[in-house]
Amino acid sequence: MIDSSTKSLPIGVFDSGVGGLTVLKAVHEALPNEDLIYLGDTARLPYGTKSPTSISRYACQATQHLQQAGIKLLIVACNTASAVALDALREQMAPLPVIGVVEPGATAAVSACPAGSHLVLATEATVRLGAYRKAIEARDADASVREHACEMLVALAEEGWTNGDIATAIVRRYLDDAGGDADCVILGCTHFPLIREPIAAALSDKAVIVDSASTTAAVTAQTLAELDLANASSEPGTLTLWATDGATRFARVGGQFLGRALEPSDVTIVDL
Amino acid sequence: MIDSSTKSLPIGVFDSGVGGLTVLKAVHEALPNEDLIYLGDTARLPYGTKSPTSISRYACQATQHLQQAGIKLLIVACNTASAVALDALREQMAPLPVIGVVEPGATAAVSACPAGSHLVLATEATVRLGAYRKAIEARDADASVREHACEMLVALAEEGWTNGDIATAIVRRYLDDAGGDADCVILGCTHFPLIREPIAAALSDKAVIVDSASTTAAVTAQTLAELDLANASSEPGTLTLWATDGATRFARVGGQFLGRALEPSDVTIVDL
Repeated sequence: MIDSSTKSLPIGVFDSGVGGLTVLKAVHEALPNEDLIYLGDTARLPYGTKSPTSISRYACQATQHLQQAGIKLLIVACNTASAVALDALREQMAPLPVIGVVEPGATAAVSACPAGSHLVLATEATVRLGAYRKAIEARDADASVREHACEMLVALAEEGWTNGDIATAIVRRYLDDAGGDADCVILGCTHFPLIREPIAAALSDKAVIVDSASTTAAVTAQTLAELDLANASSEPGTLTLWATDGATRFARVGGQFLGRALEPSDVTIVDL
Repeated sequence: MIDSSTKSLPIGVFDSGVGGLTVLKAVHEALPNEDLIYLGDTARLPYGTKSPTSISRYACQATQHLQQAGIKLLIVACNTASAVALDALREQMAPLPVIGVVEPGATAAVSACPAGSHLVLATEATVRLGAYRKAIEARDADASVREHACEMLVALAEEGWTNGDIATAIVRRYLDDAGGDADCVILGCTHFPLIREPIAAALSDKAVIVDSASTTAAVTAQTLAELDLANASSEPGTLTLWATDGATRFARVGGQFLGRALEPSDVTIVDL
Protein backbone atom coordinates (compact mmCIF):
# COMPACT_ATOMS: atom_id res chain seq x y z
CA MET A 1 0.00 0.00 0.00
CA ILE A 2 1.24 3.48 -0.87
CA ASP A 3 -0.26 6.09 1.45
CA SER A 4 0.89 9.42 2.86
CA SER A 5 2.99 7.78 5.61
CA THR A 6 5.02 5.99 2.92
CA LYS A 7 6.64 9.32 1.93
CA SER A 8 8.56 9.55 5.18
CA LEU A 9 10.13 6.07 4.82
CA PRO A 10 13.77 5.76 3.79
CA ILE A 11 15.06 4.71 0.38
CA GLY A 12 16.80 1.31 0.44
CA VAL A 13 20.04 0.86 -1.50
CA PHE A 14 21.42 -2.64 -2.00
CA ASP A 15 24.76 -3.88 -3.33
CA SER A 16 26.97 -6.95 -2.99
CA GLY A 17 29.69 -4.83 -1.38
CA VAL A 18 30.91 -1.26 -1.04
CA GLY A 19 30.80 -0.25 -4.72
CA GLY A 20 27.16 0.85 -4.47
CA LEU A 21 28.23 3.55 -2.02
CA THR A 22 29.08 5.67 -5.09
CA VAL A 23 25.37 5.40 -5.95
CA LEU A 24 24.39 6.17 -2.33
CA LYS A 25 26.60 9.28 -2.44
CA ALA A 26 25.02 10.46 -5.71
CA VAL A 27 21.50 9.85 -4.35
CA HIS A 28 22.32 11.68 -1.11
CA GLU A 29 23.64 14.66 -3.10
CA ALA A 30 20.58 14.70 -5.38
CA LEU A 31 18.04 14.15 -2.57
CA PRO A 32 19.59 15.57 0.63
CA ASN A 33 16.34 15.35 2.62
CA GLU A 34 15.75 11.65 2.04
CA ASP A 35 16.70 9.06 4.66
CA LEU A 36 18.83 6.30 3.13
CA ILE A 37 19.57 2.73 4.27
CA TYR A 38 22.44 0.96 2.54
CA LEU A 39 22.88 -2.81 2.71
CA GLY A 40 26.14 -4.32 1.40
CA ASP A 41 26.09 -8.13 1.25
CA THR A 42 29.84 -8.29 1.93
CA ALA A 43 29.66 -11.84 3.33
CA ARG A 44 28.65 -13.22 -0.06
CA LEU A 45 30.51 -10.98 -2.51
CA PRO A 46 31.42 -11.14 -5.32
CA TYR A 47 28.06 -11.88 -6.95
CA GLY A 48 29.63 -11.92 -10.43
CA THR A 49 30.94 -15.46 -10.08
CA LYS A 50 27.69 -16.88 -8.64
CA SER A 51 24.88 -18.56 -10.57
CA PRO A 52 21.80 -16.47 -11.53
CA THR A 53 19.67 -18.58 -9.14
CA SER A 54 21.96 -17.79 -6.19
CA ILE A 55 22.19 -14.09 -7.11
CA SER A 56 18.39 -13.81 -7.26
CA ARG A 57 18.03 -15.57 -3.92
CA TYR A 58 20.61 -13.31 -2.24
CA ALA A 59 19.06 -10.17 -3.72
CA CYS A 60 15.57 -11.19 -2.60
CA GLN A 61 16.83 -11.92 0.95
CA ALA A 62 18.57 -8.54 1.14
CA THR A 63 15.46 -6.79 -0.17
CA GLN A 64 13.29 -8.58 2.38
CA HIS A 65 15.58 -7.33 5.15
CA LEU A 66 15.19 -3.76 3.87
CA GLN A 67 11.42 -4.22 3.52
CA GLN A 68 11.16 -5.35 7.14
CA ALA A 69 12.88 -2.11 8.18
CA GLY A 70 10.42 -0.23 5.93
CA ILE A 71 11.51 1.38 2.65
CA LYS A 72 9.55 3.26 -0.01
CA LEU A 73 11.85 2.61 -2.98
CA LEU A 74 14.64 0.13 -3.68
CA ILE A 75 17.79 0.96 -5.62
CA VAL A 76 19.72 -2.09 -6.82
CA ALA A 77 23.17 -0.50 -6.84
CA CYS A 78 24.84 -3.64 -8.18
CA ASN A 79 25.25 -4.25 -11.88
CA THR A 80 25.12 -8.04 -11.57
CA ALA A 81 21.97 -8.07 -9.44
CA SER A 82 20.37 -5.44 -11.71
CA ALA A 83 21.06 -7.61 -14.74
CA VAL A 84 19.86 -10.86 -13.15
CA ALA A 85 17.23 -10.15 -10.50
CA LEU A 86 15.39 -6.92 -11.35
CA ASP A 87 12.11 -8.60 -12.35
CA ALA A 88 12.04 -10.77 -9.22
CA LEU A 89 12.75 -7.76 -7.02
CA ARG A 90 10.04 -5.66 -8.73
CA GLU A 91 7.52 -8.41 -8.02
CA GLN A 92 8.65 -8.60 -4.40
CA MET A 93 8.53 -4.80 -3.87
CA ALA A 94 5.26 -4.13 -5.79
CA PRO A 95 3.57 -1.67 -5.80
CA LEU A 96 6.66 0.22 -4.61
CA PRO A 97 9.29 1.08 -7.23
CA VAL A 98 12.64 -0.64 -7.90
CA ILE A 99 15.44 1.09 -9.81
CA GLY A 100 18.49 -0.75 -11.14
CA VAL A 101 21.74 0.81 -12.35
CA VAL A 102 21.78 -0.59 -15.88
CA GLU A 103 18.63 0.99 -17.33
CA PRO A 104 19.39 4.58 -16.21
CA GLY A 105 22.93 4.27 -17.59
CA ALA A 106 21.69 2.93 -20.93
CA THR A 107 19.02 5.65 -21.21
CA ALA A 108 21.55 8.38 -20.46
CA ALA A 109 24.05 6.95 -22.97
CA VAL A 110 21.49 6.80 -25.78
CA SER A 111 20.26 10.28 -25.00
CA ALA A 112 23.81 11.72 -24.94
CA CYS A 113 24.93 10.02 -28.18
CA PRO A 114 22.04 8.97 -30.44
CA ALA A 115 23.15 6.48 -33.11
CA GLY A 116 26.57 6.69 -31.50
CA SER A 117 29.37 4.30 -30.66
CA HIS A 118 29.34 3.19 -27.02
CA LEU A 119 32.08 1.59 -24.94
CA VAL A 120 30.93 -0.04 -21.68
CA LEU A 121 33.68 -0.48 -19.09
CA ALA A 122 32.50 -3.04 -16.54
CA THR A 123 33.41 -6.17 -14.60
CA GLU A 124 33.79 -9.54 -16.25
CA ALA A 125 30.41 -10.65 -14.86
CA THR A 126 28.54 -7.63 -16.24
CA VAL A 127 30.19 -8.00 -19.65
CA ARG A 128 29.30 -11.70 -19.71
CA LEU A 129 25.65 -10.89 -19.00
CA GLY A 130 25.62 -8.30 -21.82
CA ALA A 131 23.06 -6.24 -19.91
CA TYR A 132 24.25 -2.81 -21.08
CA ARG A 133 24.50 -3.95 -24.69
CA LYS A 134 20.94 -5.27 -24.62
CA ALA A 135 19.60 -2.19 -22.83
CA ILE A 136 21.31 0.25 -25.24
CA GLU A 137 20.33 -1.70 -28.38
CA ALA A 138 16.72 -1.91 -27.16
CA ARG A 139 16.67 1.91 -26.90
CA ASP A 140 18.60 2.73 -30.10
CA ALA A 141 18.77 0.27 -33.00
CA ASP A 142 21.46 2.42 -34.65
CA ALA A 143 23.83 2.34 -31.68
CA SER A 144 27.03 0.31 -31.79
CA VAL A 145 28.15 -1.15 -28.48
CA ARG A 146 31.47 -2.60 -27.31
CA GLU A 147 31.83 -3.98 -23.77
CA HIS A 148 35.19 -4.47 -22.07
CA ALA A 149 36.00 -6.16 -18.76
CA CYS A 150 38.35 -4.06 -16.59
CA GLU A 151 38.81 -6.07 -13.36
CA MET A 152 41.98 -4.20 -12.34
CA LEU A 153 39.97 -0.97 -12.06
CA VAL A 154 37.95 -2.54 -9.22
CA ALA A 155 41.15 -3.36 -7.30
CA LEU A 156 42.50 0.12 -8.08
CA ALA A 157 39.39 1.78 -6.63
CA GLU A 158 39.39 -0.46 -3.54
CA GLU A 159 43.11 0.22 -2.97
CA GLY A 160 42.42 3.96 -3.23
CA TRP A 161 45.00 4.44 -6.02
CA THR A 162 42.51 6.53 -7.99
CA ASN A 163 45.02 8.97 -9.44
CA GLY A 164 48.60 9.07 -10.62
CA ASP A 165 50.77 7.15 -13.06
CA ILE A 166 49.60 3.63 -12.19
CA ALA A 167 45.90 4.47 -12.59
CA THR A 168 46.61 6.26 -15.87
CA ALA A 169 48.69 3.39 -17.26
CA ILE A 170 46.05 0.80 -16.36
CA VAL A 171 43.20 2.83 -17.89
CA ARG A 172 45.20 3.41 -21.11
CA ARG A 173 46.01 -0.29 -21.38
CA TYR A 174 42.32 -1.23 -21.06
CA LEU A 175 41.27 1.38 -23.62
CA ASP A 176 43.90 0.06 -26.06
CA ASP A 177 42.77 -3.55 -25.44
CA ALA A 178 39.15 -2.47 -26.01
CA GLY A 179 40.03 -1.03 -29.42
CA GLY A 180 40.19 2.63 -28.39
CA ASP A 181 37.81 5.46 -27.79
CA ALA A 182 34.06 5.81 -28.46
CA ASP A 183 31.49 8.62 -28.65
CA CYS A 184 30.22 7.58 -25.24
CA VAL A 185 32.05 5.71 -22.47
CA ILE A 186 29.76 4.16 -19.86
CA LEU A 187 31.12 3.50 -16.37
CA GLY A 188 29.26 0.18 -16.03
CA CYS A 189 30.60 -0.68 -12.57
CA THR A 190 29.77 1.16 -9.38
CA HIS A 191 33.49 1.28 -8.50
CA PHE A 192 34.45 3.27 -11.57
CA PRO A 193 33.19 6.78 -10.68
CA LEU A 194 36.21 6.89 -8.34
CA ILE A 195 38.53 6.54 -11.33
CA ARG A 196 36.63 9.02 -13.50
CA GLU A 197 39.56 11.43 -13.62
CA PRO A 198 42.19 9.10 -15.16
CA ILE A 199 39.50 7.68 -17.48
CA ALA A 200 38.58 11.18 -18.67
CA ALA A 201 42.27 12.02 -19.16
CA ALA A 202 42.77 8.94 -21.36
CA LEU A 203 39.80 9.69 -23.66
CA SER A 204 39.66 12.07 -26.61
CA ASP A 205 37.88 15.38 -26.01
CA LYS A 206 34.82 14.34 -28.02
CA ALA A 207 33.99 11.38 -25.74
CA VAL A 208 31.12 11.75 -23.26
CA ILE A 209 31.33 9.83 -19.96
CA VAL A 210 28.10 8.37 -18.57
CA ASP A 211 28.29 7.49 -14.93
CA SER A 212 25.58 5.08 -13.77
CA ALA A 213 25.74 6.42 -10.20
CA SER A 214 24.63 9.94 -11.10
CA THR A 215 22.13 8.76 -13.73
CA THR A 216 20.55 6.36 -11.21
CA ALA A 217 20.25 9.22 -8.70
CA ALA A 218 18.52 11.35 -11.34
CA VAL A 219 16.03 8.57 -12.17
CA THR A 220 15.37 8.06 -8.44
CA ALA A 221 14.54 11.77 -8.00
CA GLN A 222 12.24 11.66 -11.03
CA THR A 223 10.48 8.49 -9.81
CA LEU A 224 9.83 9.92 -6.34
CA ALA A 225 8.37 13.06 -7.93
CA GLU A 226 6.15 11.11 -10.36
CA LEU A 227 4.76 8.82 -7.65
CA ASP A 228 4.44 11.67 -5.13
CA LEU A 229 6.78 9.81 -2.76
CA ALA A 230 9.31 12.58 -1.98
CA ASN A 231 9.91 13.22 1.71
CA ALA A 232 7.99 16.30 2.86
CA SER A 233 10.45 17.00 5.69
CA SER A 234 13.08 19.69 5.22
CA GLU A 235 15.40 18.04 7.78
CA PRO A 236 18.71 16.67 6.42
CA GLY A 237 18.28 12.97 5.59
CA THR A 238 20.00 10.27 7.65
CA LEU A 239 22.40 7.60 6.36
CA THR A 240 22.21 4.08 7.82
CA LEU A 241 24.89 1.57 6.79
CA TRP A 242 24.43 -2.19 7.05
CA ALA A 243 26.81 -4.93 5.93
CA THR A 244 26.70 -8.70 6.28
CA ASP A 245 30.41 -9.02 7.25
CA GLY A 246 33.60 -7.05 7.92
CA ALA A 247 32.73 -3.65 9.46
CA THR A 248 36.40 -2.60 9.60
CA ARG A 249 37.08 -3.17 5.93
CA PHE A 250 33.68 -1.74 4.98
CA ALA A 251 34.49 1.46 6.88
CA ARG A 252 38.00 1.82 5.45
CA VAL A 253 37.22 1.10 1.80
CA GLY A 254 33.65 2.40 1.92
CA GLY A 255 34.79 5.76 3.27
CA GLN A 256 36.66 6.40 0.01
CA PHE A 257 33.57 5.50 -2.02
CA LEU A 258 31.25 7.63 0.07
CA GLY A 259 33.75 10.50 0.15
CA ARG A 260 33.71 10.84 3.94
CA ALA A 261 35.60 9.12 6.77
CA LEU A 262 33.75 6.13 8.28
CA GLU A 263 34.41 4.32 11.55
CA PRO A 264 33.66 0.59 11.95
CA SER A 265 31.04 1.64 14.53
CA ASP A 266 29.18 3.49 11.74
CA VAL A 267 28.45 0.09 10.16
CA THR A 268 25.94 -2.37 11.62
CA ILE A 269 26.48 -6.05 10.83
CA VAL A 270 23.20 -7.76 9.92
CA ASP A 271 22.38 -11.40 9.28
CA LEU A 272 20.22 -12.15 6.23
CA MET B 1 44.54 -46.65 8.35
CA ILE B 2 47.78 -46.32 6.40
CA ASP B 3 48.61 -49.51 4.51
CA SER B 4 50.42 -50.34 1.29
CA SER B 5 47.39 -49.51 -0.89
CA THR B 6 47.42 -45.94 0.51
CA LYS B 7 50.61 -45.20 -1.47
CA SER B 8 48.80 -45.36 -4.78
CA LEU B 9 46.13 -42.83 -3.76
CA PRO B 10 46.31 -39.28 -5.10
CA ILE B 11 47.41 -36.19 -3.17
CA GLY B 12 44.55 -33.73 -2.56
CA VAL B 13 45.17 -30.01 -2.99
CA PHE B 14 42.56 -27.55 -1.77
CA ASP B 15 42.22 -23.78 -2.26
CA SER B 16 39.42 -21.19 -2.26
CA GLY B 17 40.06 -20.48 -5.95
CA VAL B 18 42.69 -20.79 -8.66
CA GLY B 19 45.70 -19.38 -6.75
CA GLY B 20 46.59 -22.78 -5.30
CA LEU B 21 47.28 -24.00 -8.83
CA THR B 22 50.77 -22.46 -8.42
CA VAL B 23 51.22 -24.95 -5.55
CA LEU B 24 49.75 -27.78 -7.65
CA LYS B 25 52.23 -26.91 -10.42
CA ALA B 26 55.18 -26.95 -8.00
CA VAL B 27 54.04 -30.28 -6.49
CA HIS B 28 53.59 -31.81 -9.95
CA GLU B 29 57.10 -30.70 -10.93
CA ALA B 30 58.61 -32.03 -7.69
CA LEU B 31 56.63 -35.30 -7.72
CA PRO B 32 55.84 -36.11 -11.36
CA ASN B 33 54.65 -39.66 -10.60
CA GLU B 34 52.03 -38.67 -8.06
CA ASP B 35 48.35 -38.38 -9.02
CA LEU B 36 46.91 -35.02 -7.93
CA ILE B 37 43.33 -33.87 -7.33
CA TYR B 38 42.79 -30.12 -7.04
CA LEU B 39 39.61 -28.66 -5.54
CA GLY B 40 39.01 -24.89 -5.89
CA ASP B 41 36.02 -23.64 -3.87
CA THR B 42 35.33 -20.91 -6.43
CA ALA B 43 31.65 -20.62 -5.47
CA ARG B 44 32.56 -19.31 -2.03
CA LEU B 45 35.72 -17.31 -2.67
CA PRO B 46 37.20 -15.11 -1.33
CA TYR B 47 37.72 -16.79 2.05
CA GLY B 48 39.65 -13.77 3.37
CA THR B 49 36.53 -11.75 4.13
CA LYS B 50 34.67 -14.64 5.82
CA SER B 51 34.57 -15.42 9.55
CA PRO B 52 36.95 -18.10 10.95
CA THR B 53 33.94 -20.33 11.72
CA SER B 54 32.75 -20.21 8.10
CA ILE B 55 36.27 -20.73 6.73
CA SER B 56 36.76 -23.82 8.92
CA ARG B 57 33.38 -25.22 7.87
CA TYR B 58 34.12 -24.68 4.15
CA ALA B 59 37.61 -26.18 4.47
CA CYS B 60 36.26 -29.26 6.31
CA GLN B 61 33.55 -29.76 3.65
CA ALA B 62 36.10 -29.53 0.84
CA THR B 63 38.41 -31.95 2.64
CA GLN B 64 35.55 -34.40 3.17
CA HIS B 65 34.85 -34.32 -0.57
CA LEU B 66 38.51 -35.14 -1.29
CA GLN B 67 38.49 -37.86 1.40
CA GLN B 68 35.47 -39.51 -0.21
CA ALA B 69 37.41 -39.67 -3.49
CA GLY B 70 40.37 -41.13 -1.53
CA ILE B 71 43.55 -39.14 -0.88
CA LYS B 72 46.72 -39.99 1.04
CA LEU B 73 47.83 -36.44 1.92
CA LEU B 74 46.09 -33.05 1.94
CA ILE B 75 47.77 -29.80 0.91
CA VAL B 76 45.92 -26.68 2.05
CA ALA B 77 47.07 -24.39 -0.76
CA CYS B 78 45.23 -21.38 0.65
CA ASN B 79 46.89 -19.00 3.09
CA THR B 80 43.65 -18.07 4.85
CA ALA B 81 42.52 -21.66 5.36
CA SER B 82 46.06 -22.65 6.44
CA ALA B 83 46.04 -19.90 9.05
CA VAL B 84 42.54 -20.63 10.35
CA ALA B 85 41.67 -24.29 9.85
CA LEU B 86 44.86 -26.38 9.88
CA ASP B 87 44.23 -27.99 13.29
CA ALA B 88 40.65 -28.93 12.42
CA LEU B 89 41.77 -30.40 9.09
CA ARG B 90 44.58 -32.41 10.74
CA GLU B 91 42.04 -33.91 13.13
CA GLN B 92 39.72 -34.76 10.24
CA MET B 93 42.50 -36.32 8.10
CA ALA B 94 44.31 -38.19 10.92
CA PRO B 95 46.37 -40.35 10.71
CA LEU B 96 47.07 -39.04 7.18
CA PRO B 97 49.19 -35.89 6.89
CA VAL B 98 48.03 -32.31 6.18
CA ILE B 99 50.44 -29.64 4.90
CA GLY B 100 49.59 -25.92 4.86
CA VAL B 101 51.42 -23.21 2.93
CA VAL B 102 52.35 -20.95 5.87
CA GLU B 103 54.63 -23.28 7.86
CA PRO B 104 56.84 -24.37 4.92
CA GLY B 105 57.22 -20.71 3.87
CA ALA B 106 58.18 -19.63 7.38
CA THR B 107 60.66 -22.51 7.79
CA ALA B 108 62.31 -21.71 4.47
CA ALA B 109 62.53 -18.00 5.30
CA VAL B 110 64.18 -18.60 8.69
CA SER B 111 66.58 -21.10 7.17
CA ALA B 112 67.54 -18.73 4.32
CA CYS B 113 68.03 -15.66 6.56
CA PRO B 114 68.64 -16.53 10.23
CA ALA B 115 68.15 -13.50 12.52
CA GLY B 116 67.22 -11.62 9.37
CA SER B 117 64.65 -9.01 8.36
CA HIS B 118 61.63 -10.50 6.62
CA LEU B 119 59.00 -8.84 4.47
CA VAL B 120 55.81 -10.86 3.88
CA LEU B 121 53.81 -9.80 0.82
CA ALA B 122 50.30 -11.20 1.16
CA THR B 123 46.59 -10.44 0.94
CA GLU B 124 44.81 -8.24 3.44
CA ALA B 125 43.25 -11.31 5.10
CA THR B 126 46.59 -13.09 5.60
CA VAL B 127 48.21 -9.94 6.97
CA ARG B 128 45.29 -9.45 9.37
CA LEU B 129 45.69 -13.01 10.67
CA GLY B 130 49.45 -12.45 11.18
CA ALA B 131 50.10 -16.12 10.47
CA TYR B 132 53.51 -15.67 8.80
CA ARG B 133 54.70 -13.29 11.51
CA LYS B 134 53.76 -15.78 14.24
CA ALA B 135 55.27 -18.74 12.37
CA ILE B 136 58.57 -16.93 11.68
CA GLU B 137 58.88 -15.53 15.22
CA ALA B 138 58.16 -18.98 16.69
CA ARG B 139 61.09 -20.37 14.66
CA ASP B 140 63.56 -17.49 15.14
CA ALA B 141 63.27 -15.11 18.11
CA ASP B 142 65.86 -12.80 16.50
CA ALA B 143 63.95 -12.34 13.25
CA SER B 144 62.22 -9.06 12.44
CA VAL B 145 59.03 -9.34 10.40
CA ARG B 146 57.03 -6.80 8.41
CA GLU B 147 53.82 -7.84 6.64
CA HIS B 148 52.28 -5.82 3.80
CA ALA B 149 48.93 -6.29 2.05
CA CYS B 150 49.24 -6.16 -1.76
CA GLU B 151 45.70 -6.74 -3.09
CA MET B 152 46.48 -5.29 -6.54
CA LEU B 153 49.01 -8.08 -7.14
CA VAL B 154 46.15 -10.61 -6.96
CA ALA B 155 44.23 -8.74 -9.66
CA LEU B 156 47.44 -8.37 -11.70
CA ALA B 157 48.06 -12.14 -11.61
CA GLU B 158 44.43 -12.96 -12.47
CA GLU B 159 44.47 -10.45 -15.36
CA GLY B 160 47.67 -12.08 -16.64
CA TRP B 161 49.58 -8.77 -16.64
CA THR B 162 52.54 -10.45 -14.95
CA ASN B 163 55.26 -8.49 -16.71
CA GLY B 164 55.87 -5.05 -18.13
CA ASP B 165 55.66 -1.46 -16.92
CA ILE B 166 52.36 -1.72 -15.03
CA ALA B 167 53.45 -4.78 -13.01
CA THR B 168 56.79 -3.14 -12.23
CA ALA B 169 55.21 0.15 -11.14
CA ILE B 170 52.69 -1.60 -8.86
CA VAL B 171 55.36 -3.79 -7.22
CA ARG B 172 57.64 -0.76 -6.64
CA ARG B 173 54.78 1.21 -5.11
CA TYR B 174 53.99 -1.61 -2.66
CA LEU B 175 57.65 -2.01 -1.71
CA ASP B 176 57.89 1.74 -1.07
CA ASP B 177 54.68 1.67 1.00
CA ALA B 178 56.04 -1.31 2.97
CA GLY B 179 59.17 0.66 3.91
CA GLY B 180 61.50 -0.91 1.34
CA ASP B 181 63.53 -4.03 0.95
CA ALA B 182 64.38 -6.82 3.45
CA ASP B 183 66.88 -9.70 3.67
CA CYS B 184 64.09 -12.09 2.80
CA VAL B 185 60.87 -11.40 0.86
CA ILE B 186 58.18 -14.05 1.33
CA LEU B 187 55.54 -14.49 -1.37
CA GLY B 188 52.74 -15.10 1.15
CA CYS B 189 49.95 -15.46 -1.41
CA THR B 190 49.60 -18.32 -3.87
CA HIS B 191 49.01 -15.79 -6.68
CA PHE B 192 52.39 -14.12 -6.29
CA PRO B 193 54.74 -16.71 -7.84
CA LEU B 194 53.32 -15.48 -11.17
CA ILE B 195 54.72 -12.00 -10.47
CA ARG B 196 58.06 -13.25 -9.19
CA GLU B 197 59.94 -11.59 -12.06
CA PRO B 198 58.86 -7.96 -11.46
CA ILE B 199 59.19 -8.52 -7.70
CA ALA B 200 62.77 -9.78 -8.14
CA ALA B 201 63.55 -6.83 -10.42
CA ALA B 202 62.34 -4.35 -7.79
CA LEU B 203 64.44 -5.84 -4.95
CA SER B 204 68.09 -5.26 -4.18
CA ASP B 205 70.49 -8.05 -5.16
CA LYS B 206 70.98 -9.17 -1.56
CA ALA B 207 67.29 -10.02 -1.03
CA VAL B 208 66.25 -13.68 -1.09
CA ILE B 209 62.75 -14.55 -2.36
CA VAL B 210 60.90 -17.38 -0.59
CA ASP B 211 58.02 -18.77 -2.58
CA SER B 212 55.52 -20.76 -0.53
CA ALA B 213 54.52 -22.84 -3.57
CA SER B 214 57.94 -24.41 -4.07
CA THR B 215 58.64 -24.74 -0.33
CA THR B 216 55.28 -26.51 0.16
CA ALA B 217 56.14 -28.89 -2.67
CA ALA B 218 59.49 -29.67 -1.02
CA VAL B 219 57.83 -30.37 2.35
CA THR B 220 55.28 -32.61 0.62
CA ALA B 221 58.05 -34.68 -1.01
CA GLN B 222 59.84 -34.98 2.34
CA THR B 223 56.64 -36.01 4.18
CA LEU B 224 55.80 -38.70 1.62
CA ALA B 225 59.32 -40.09 1.95
CA GLU B 226 59.27 -40.04 5.77
CA LEU B 227 55.90 -41.79 5.99
CA ASP B 228 56.74 -44.19 3.17
CA LEU B 229 53.75 -42.91 1.19
CA ALA B 230 55.41 -42.14 -2.16
CA ASN B 231 53.74 -43.71 -5.19
CA ALA B 232 55.64 -46.81 -6.28
CA SER B 233 54.44 -46.45 -9.89
CA SER B 234 56.78 -44.96 -12.49
CA GLU B 235 53.85 -43.84 -14.67
CA PRO B 236 53.39 -40.07 -15.08
CA GLY B 237 50.90 -38.80 -12.46
CA THR B 238 47.42 -37.59 -13.48
CA LEU B 239 45.91 -34.17 -12.74
CA THR B 240 42.21 -33.93 -11.83
CA LEU B 241 40.67 -30.46 -11.51
CA TRP B 242 37.50 -29.76 -9.54
CA ALA B 243 35.83 -26.42 -8.87
CA THR B 244 32.57 -25.47 -7.16
CA ASP B 245 31.59 -22.86 -9.81
CA GLY B 246 32.64 -21.26 -13.09
CA ALA B 247 34.53 -23.81 -15.23
CA THR B 248 35.12 -21.25 -18.01
CA ARG B 249 36.80 -18.68 -15.78
CA PHE B 250 38.67 -21.41 -13.90
CA ALA B 251 40.10 -22.73 -17.16
CA ARG B 252 41.06 -19.29 -18.50
CA VAL B 253 42.66 -17.88 -15.35
CA GLY B 254 43.80 -21.22 -13.96
CA GLY B 255 45.66 -22.05 -17.15
CA GLN B 256 48.02 -19.13 -16.50
CA PHE B 257 48.62 -20.33 -12.95
CA LEU B 258 49.21 -23.91 -13.97
CA GLY B 259 51.39 -22.86 -16.90
CA ARG B 260 49.42 -24.89 -19.46
CA ALA B 261 46.29 -24.23 -21.54
CA LEU B 262 43.09 -25.52 -19.95
CA GLU B 263 39.67 -26.04 -21.51
CA PRO B 264 36.45 -25.64 -19.48
CA SER B 265 35.90 -29.38 -20.11
CA ASP B 266 39.11 -30.09 -18.14
CA VAL B 267 37.33 -28.80 -15.02
CA THR B 268 34.60 -30.77 -13.26
CA ILE B 269 32.07 -28.77 -11.24
CA VAL B 270 31.36 -30.41 -7.88
CA ASP B 271 28.83 -29.61 -5.18
CA LEU B 272 30.12 -29.60 -1.60
